[in-house]
Amino acid sequence: MKKYTHINDIDDIYSWIKAANNIKSDPLKDLGLGKNKTLVMLFFNSSLRTRLSTQKAALNLGMNPIIMNVSGDSWAIEFADETIMNGNTAEHIKEAAAVVSQYADVIAVRAFPSLKDKEKDENEFVINSFLKYASVPIVNMESSIGHPLQGLTDAITIAEHTITARPKVVLSWAPHIKALPHAVGNSFIQAMQKMDVEFVITNPEGYDLNPEITKNTPIFHNQSVALKEADFVYAKNWSSYDDYGKVLKTDSNWMITKEKLGSAKFMHCLPVRRNVVVEDAVLDSDNSLVIEQANNRTFAAQLVLKKILENL
Amino acid sequence: MKKYTHINDIDDIYSWIKAANNIKSDPLKDLGLGKNKTLVMLFFNSSLRTRLSTQKAALNLGMNPIIMNVSGDSWAIEFADETIMNGNTAEHIKEAAAVVSQYADVIAVRAFPSLKDKEKDENEFVINSFLKYASVPIVNMESSIGHPLQGLTDAITIAEHTITARPKVVLSWAPHIKALPHAVGNSFIQAMQKMDVEFVITNPEGYDLNPEITKNTPIFHNQSVALKEADFVYAKNWSSYDDYGKVLKTDSNWMITKEKLGSAKFMHCLPVRRNVVVEDAVLDSDNSLVIEQANNRTFAAQLVLKKILENL
Amino acid sequence: MKKYTHINDIDDIYSWIKAANNIKSDPLKDLGLGKNKTLVMLFFNSSLRTRLSTQKAALNLGMNPIIMNVSGDSWAIEFADETIMNGNTAEHIKEAAAVVSQYADVIAVRAFPSLKDKEKDENEFVINSFLKYASVPIVNMESSIGHPLQGLTDAITIAEHTITARPKVVLSWAPHIKALPHAVGNSFIQAMQKMDVEFVITNPEGYDLNPEITKNTPIFHNQSVALKEADFVYAKNWSSYDDYGKVLKTDSNWMITKEKLGSAKFMHCLPVRRNVVVEDAVLDSDNSLVIEQANNRTFAAQLVLKKILENL
Repeated sequence: MKKYTHINDIDDIYSWIKAANNIKSDPLKDLGLGKNKTLVMLFFNSSLRTRLSTQKAALNLGMNPIIMNVSGDSWAIEFADETIMNGNTAEHIKEAAAVVSQYADVIAVRAFPSLKDKEKDENEFVINSFLKYASVPIVNMESSIGHPLQGLTDAITIAEHTITARPKVVLSWAPHIKALPHAVGNSFIQAMQKMDVEFVITNPEGYDLNPEITKNTPIFHNQSVALKEADFVYAKNWSSYDDYGKVLKTDSNWMITKEKLGSAKFMHCLPVRRNVVVEDAVLDSDNSLVIEQANNRTFAAQLVLKKILENL
Repeated sequence: MKKYTHINDIDDIYSWIKAANNIKSDPLKDLGLGKNKTLVMLFFNSSLRTRLSTQKAALNLGMNPIIMNVSGDSWAIEFADETIMNGNTAEHIKEAAAVVSQYADVIAVRAFPSLKDKEKDENEFVINSFLKYASVPIVNMESSIGHPLQGLTDAITIAEHTITARPKVVLSWAPHIKALPHAVGNSFIQAMQKMDVEFVITNPEGYDLNPEITKNTPIFHNQSVALKEADFVYAKNWSSYDDYGKVLKTDSNWMITKEKLGSAKFMHCLPVRRNVVVEDAVLDSDNSLVIEQANNRTFAAQLVLKKILENL
Repeated sequence: MKKYTHINDIDDIYSWIKAANNIKSDPLKDLGLGKNKTLVMLFFNSSLRTRLSTQKAALNLGMNPIIMNVSGDSWAIEFADETIMNGNTAEHIKEAAAVVSQYADVIAVRAFPSLKDKEKDENEFVINSFLKYASVPIVNMESSIGHPLQGLTDAITIAEHTITARPKVVLSWAPHIKALPHAVGNSFIQAMQKMDVEFVITNPEGYDLNPEITKNTPIFHNQSVALKEADFVYAKNWSSYDDYGKVLKTDSNWMITKEKLGSAKFMHCLPVRRNVVVEDAVLDSDNSLVIEQANNRTFAAQLVLKKILENL
């Protein structure tokens, strides 16, 4: 594999899920594969799970992870072409990506969207600039419009906990006080569209995600209708896509409660604001899969790195 | 050993000192013990010695250390139960501790007190929350009211430099311009109470530490009386315990001088403000053990990690 | 080798270049040399290439790199002797350097100049304090007045791309909006003075570097005269040395263009501001060596660490 920047880089999701489960059952079996190989992880934004699980995955493969917080440790990066760099940015992505490529066998990048400039965000200018100017494989640790390591993790987790032939999976918008990106929602949708599940989305009016991503997945503006007979409820907040980056409502009626959940399994990518997105009673119950999801982040990242290392 | 969060986790201090000396004489002898084991070190506060010596200890055991500055690298953590998280905190300790446990074989945590809310600080809410919600052993890298890696280090250093049968050890308060925690003082007191030494404390009135910790250790409000015939003088500033977190005086008369020290050995946990806490002439003399103390931090941490690894 | 803090620590530059090329042809051949040795890298300032390439070099030698951002992770350090530390600094370099020496086999330090106090900067108080108080070898990762890892890299790169008997090398000042240090310019000059090249410097009046460093190297205040028949053009901005730390002009006439460059090779230490220091057409052409320079940083650092490790 030459890169992992989008859910579409997964050729056959069920074979990937199987491979991830194999890794999970014996995480150290490929310890020799990454020997003397370096994973440089570049963070433009905060991270806990992605930061730690990707390091852990690299270590399980015998790789040397090198971490850099781009803004704190290094120089502000310019992404625009043909610009006169007499402002705040000190280094152009053309140099940065090419240079880091010489110290890394694989580069992983996290860069959140502005949520202000829709076109710029949708162009994925950070991750695409790395793809263009780096000479080594790129892994997306969450970009403007996608979080494919999380989407893969979620597919693995759903497969692991599926007990019916074709489970019903509901992605439900939930309230939040801040304007959040669409990346997790988008990648989850794209992962579910590749799986043999009954998949529906529910969100308030004005919160429909990009129709090029939701495609023909049913969208319900009535949460209780959508949640009926769900096997998995995936809660996530996102800001408006139409009224780009805006928080239109923080209506606590959309919070996931134990009553709404019933016997379904609860999922969330974390971090989650308790009693805003979902009530304590859900997270503290056996129905919650959130900790297991976080655990599976290691194996998703390890699978991706393994596929890349095997192809170096 | 299942955890190391308090000096009382030491069962027999003399056998620990002996074990630490064994490690010091051959630091790499257990290089295989931590192979493919991960130590996640979480810093809520600044650190130099603890940060470097604990990493070094982990490397000496063959472990993979992963470092995270919680505030800078990750999300603000909520510790209160049953709260509606619509403020500045983005992730609850219930999730954070459980999640990190899945990427770590051991978690080490540094979190200083507020020095504003005595009850909250004394409840050790950070370290205790990790003990409660993490599923792997926890090591205290300095918490609100204790710094047991330092206390163990100090015991090792005193044993190493003891030349009389039962040395006199004096813990002396010293001036400082800022309000400092009680953690180092507390753990030193608790370590000395476990050892066969003549131990006394001296501090100005209003600076007596928690009586549940000082217990029957003599406290002198006259420094010169306390220092008489001392073999070891351990200087440390702390803010008031009674008038919680306040700086009542910064009287330079309490600074440790070469004259006051006489032939005693000088100790301090570092960092130390020269010519405020102690004069140059002391630190630059052969009587100072502060660099050797810092050296022993590695072996104290290595002993603790070794005991934990042997029990995983 | 006991230290690498200055270009003059290179005894024979051509044998060093040869040794670096040997490393470059087989970077992992000394993987056993640094086993269980620790490189502590201390950053007082931002870094990308130095940070990553030095880590990579350490890993290629089997060393364990430990990274610390001094200001963010640790305590503010005092460098003045006999001072009463009742201000912002919490730890004296005497303790800091001695303490870190106990966790490190080699210490590497990056500390930029103030550009305000010429005498203090020229005294190299940070790097010299580490040399004085540390008990292990020190590597300079860019100090007030020198960047010898960069200077060595540049010598390696020029040797690698030399096709004529005695190439003409021009160091040209170039415009920049900020006041920049003299370190890269100084070390490049000192490296070139050791090589068998025709070396000239060109900069506007008022921008002559320290005459104790430029010595008898010709300085042209007319850029076009200096650039004539150049084989290598090394562009770099620096602030005034005479009017210390000041930006006297940002005249875009001094920017390096494709037309000025002709068939010469272009060099820069990076990060570089595009279309301020040099135009896109140069950086995007085959004449640019900047990415190769960055690549050679790894091998320069690896050679230095190797020489130090062989002497431990």
